[in-house]
Amino acid sequence: MLNSSLASAAVFNAESFTLDNGMKVVVIPNHRAPVVAHMVWYQVGAADEPQGLSGMAHYFEHLMFKGTKKLEPGEFSRIVKSLGGRDNAFTGQDYTAYFQTIAVEHLESMMEMEADRMANLDVPADHFASEKNVVIEERRQRTENDPRSLFFEQMKSALFINHPYGTPIIGWMDEIQKYEWEDVKVFYDQWYAPNNATLVISGDVTAASIRPMAERTYGKLKSKDLPPRKRAFVPPSHGKTTMTLRHERIHQASLNEIYMTPAAKDDKKTDLALQVFQEIMSGGSTTRLYNNLVVEKKKAISVSLAYRGDALDYGTISLSGKPAEGVSLEELQSLLHDEIKDIIQNNVTEAEVKDAIQRLQDSAVFARDSLQGPAMTFGFALAIGKDIDDIENWPENIGRITAADIQKAVTTYLNPDKPWHRQPITGFLLPKTTEQSPQGGENKE
Amino acid sequence: MLNSSLASAAVFNAESFTLDNGMKVVVIPNHRAPVVAHMVWYQVGAADEPQGLSGMAHYFEHLMFKGTKKLEPGEFSRIVKSLGGRDNAFTGQDYTAYFQTIAVEHLESMMEMEADRMANLDVPADHFASEKNVVIEERRQRTENDPRSLFFEQMKSALFINHPYGTPIIGWMDEIQKYEWEDVKVFYDQWYAPNNATLVISGDVTAASIRPMAERTYGKLKSKDLPPRKRAFVPPSHGKTTMTLRHERIHQASLNEIYMTPAAKDDKKTDLALQVFQEIMSGGSTTRLYNNLVVEKKKAISVSLAYRGDALDYGTISLSGKPAEGVSLEELQSLLHDEIKDIIQNNVTEAEVKDAIQRLQDSAVFARDSLQGPAMTFGFALAIGKDIDDIENWPENIGRITAADIQKAVTTYLNPDKPWHRQPITGFLLPKTTEQSPQGGENKE
Repeated sequence: MLNSSLASAAVFNAESFTLDNGMKVVVIPNHRAPVVAHMVWYQVGAADEPQGLSGMAHYFEHLMFKGTKKLEPGEFSRIVKSLGGRDNAFTGQDYTAYFQTIAVEHLESMMEMEADRMANLDVPADHFASEKNVVIEERRQRTENDPRSLFFEQMKSALFINHPYGTPIIGWMDEIQKYEWEDVKVFYDQWYAPNNATLVISGDVTAASIRPMAERTYGKLKSKDLPPRKRAFVPPSHGKTTMTLRHERIHQASLNEIYMTPAAKDDKKTDLALQVFQEIMSGGSTTRLYNNLVVEKKKAISVSLAYRGDALDYGTISLSGKPAEGVSLEELQSLLHDEIKDIIQNNVTEAEVKDAIQRLQDSAVFARDSLQGPAMTFGFALAIGKDIDDIENWPENIGRITAADIQKAVTTYLNPDKPWHRQPITGFLLPKTTEQSPQGGENKE
Repeated sequence: MLNSSLASAAVFNAESFTLDNGMKVVVIPNHRAPVVAHMVWYQVGAADEPQGLSGMAHYFEHLMFKGTKKLEPGEFSRIVKSLGGRDNAFTGQDYTAYFQTIAVEHLESMMEMEADRMANLDVPADHFASEKNVVIEERRQRTENDPRSLFFEQMKSALFINHPYGTPIIGWMDEIQKYEWEDVKVFYDQWYAPNNATLVISGDVTAASIRPMAERTYGKLKSKDLPPRKRAFVPPSHGKTTMTLRHERIHQASLNEIYMTPAAKDDKKTDLALQVFQEIMSGGSTTRLYNNLVVEKKKAISVSLAYRGDALDYGTISLSGKPAEGVSLEELQSLLHDEIKDIIQNNVTEAEVKDAIQRLQDSAVFARDSLQGPAMTFGFALAIGKDIDDIENWPENIGRITAADIQKAVTTYLNPDKPWHRQPITGFLLPKTTEQSPQGGENKE
């Protein structure tokens, strides 16, 4: 018997139910073509790793392709391909997700295979060892060889003191080498279970058509006693931290400043206000920061503000930019702060708010029409503690955000003179060769 | 039956043996007076705490005074006092130690009581709760109300990324509130065991007199399967970190720069070389840094170099100082770097080395004659992975250090242009009220 808490609502008309073993199912019907996106989201990610084994959640994601009691290593992806589908997976701080896009006639095979590797993973020892090298090479290419990534990783570490968000998802190089099969097995046994997973299917299906398939496949798996997701606090900061990296592969100086915010789920109104605020500041080439600093004052060649609230514990706002010729990073930083202070004092205009909301709502219409987009949206939102209504009602909710909401959020979380909880981390990334940056300003270390 | 690996050596003539249950015993005879220092060192400290429960090792140290199946809360210390003794305890990153100084006739009572609380702790629930407030108040007084402590804590966090040495021993305030009795009980059950403890007794005793007493008391306790002491790596840094705190309770600007070194046990020669180096640079009022920067150049009112290699995983060297009137923190930093670079290039003199070694060896002679000093020295050294010979032979070993050894150590671990493993963290601590520091120099944030 199924729990029949079937929900249905506005934009996506998503339907949801829960299997007896605790696995949540979300179905987003879209009948344009006989295809589906099939995703399984586990409520476990890099931030749930044991101390000293950073990157294990991501490494484990790789292992999920390396064989079960029924399938040879690599066979999972070969089958998907042979059926004309595509598959992949990704790991975040708070979740790990696996997905395929495929013709709807093959959906049950996918569900069968995904259920199989949820319970019966069986990785040959040589693949366990060799996959480490794959991950090491991945880290080398994406992080070690990219000064921006390396530096951003360091900045995150300095911001998220005492918290796993300060640890890179791919892991620290020294620790990737250390994984033992016993550690990995414990991780799998603890966290990979139907009651710790959400199945999200969008495409040419309905809840009614999915329900019996889900029962026949995932429904056979046993639920487990899950460990608590213990997360540490980030302690308040005392003092301002500035990090400087001079690197031979950097040719243009840039500034990045990262502020901490609460998690979206903990303050949904602020989350929506900061989404609109980001759109006003940085959503396009006619937006505030670009207009004021690049076009009008000609002090920067690029500027941006990025809000990321979608995490279980904390979010971030990044202010960044590259200075124009003759402008130092400190001067650009001060100009960016002035833009923020101007909003704290004089606020954004109602016209800016209206335009930004319209652009955001328009983009939601396009998102509705894609196959994988809605599955991503739901899986991601549920993984970080939002609910189906938050997504269905998002256009309506964001439509209610006012200039006053934005001013309050900016004043609380982005005040350069009085930041929330921790001082932001300021990063100066500079070319190695000269004390003078090519943009002209003198940048002290 | 005892393991009879009785050791005996030079300076302290310490004797050691191991009980059947794995408890190590070190005896340092000193027959000047009929008193003893009795210490038990556990191989567990703040760095062994579970993630998210920082400060628990220290909090647990408090609980050890709160009663057993035989003793009421507080009774342990009352008995020690009634017998004319004194007792206390302390917690480090790598160890927790309990000690009494008392007349030798009461030693066996102490051993009995200490063995009792190693196995039979029984803390009433109200004491468990109220002791949290004691620790919170302790943190408030020692850390929250002291901008230097607060700032140093932040600097350590930024240096020891991904490693528990970045977490303060007393714990983060938010986490102190979170301890539950189940967590504490797990910690006690896992780590408090005779085979995870070292008994160190100095005073009017011999190994022969201690052995039967140790068997009658600690010898009755069962050994346990100990968990591995899993320690994370500190990843290499990319970029230079400067932290600035302006605080209303700071009246004089100061600079502090913390470099990372290997642990003493991992490179004993470097450890000895850095001990001599510290003595040359900062061991007194006629030493290098003071002479050059305070007396000669008059650029600072105080300067110092402090080496702390005594930890299981990593050590630190701190360079610090307060600038003279009209000197900025950046200028003082640069002058301190010049002093180090001068040593890298021109080295210290053999005369400096000889003088420093003589002063260190002289101090060892005084240490020998105290009661508690030798027990501390042995307990501490064994807790961080040194052995009895390292202590007994210390005067001889340090006598062999040459100027070349020092130059090599400084070049490897304290080169401002090419630091080891991680860039040092630079801290600028300043008065709040002015942009100009009272010492005159302009200090940019």
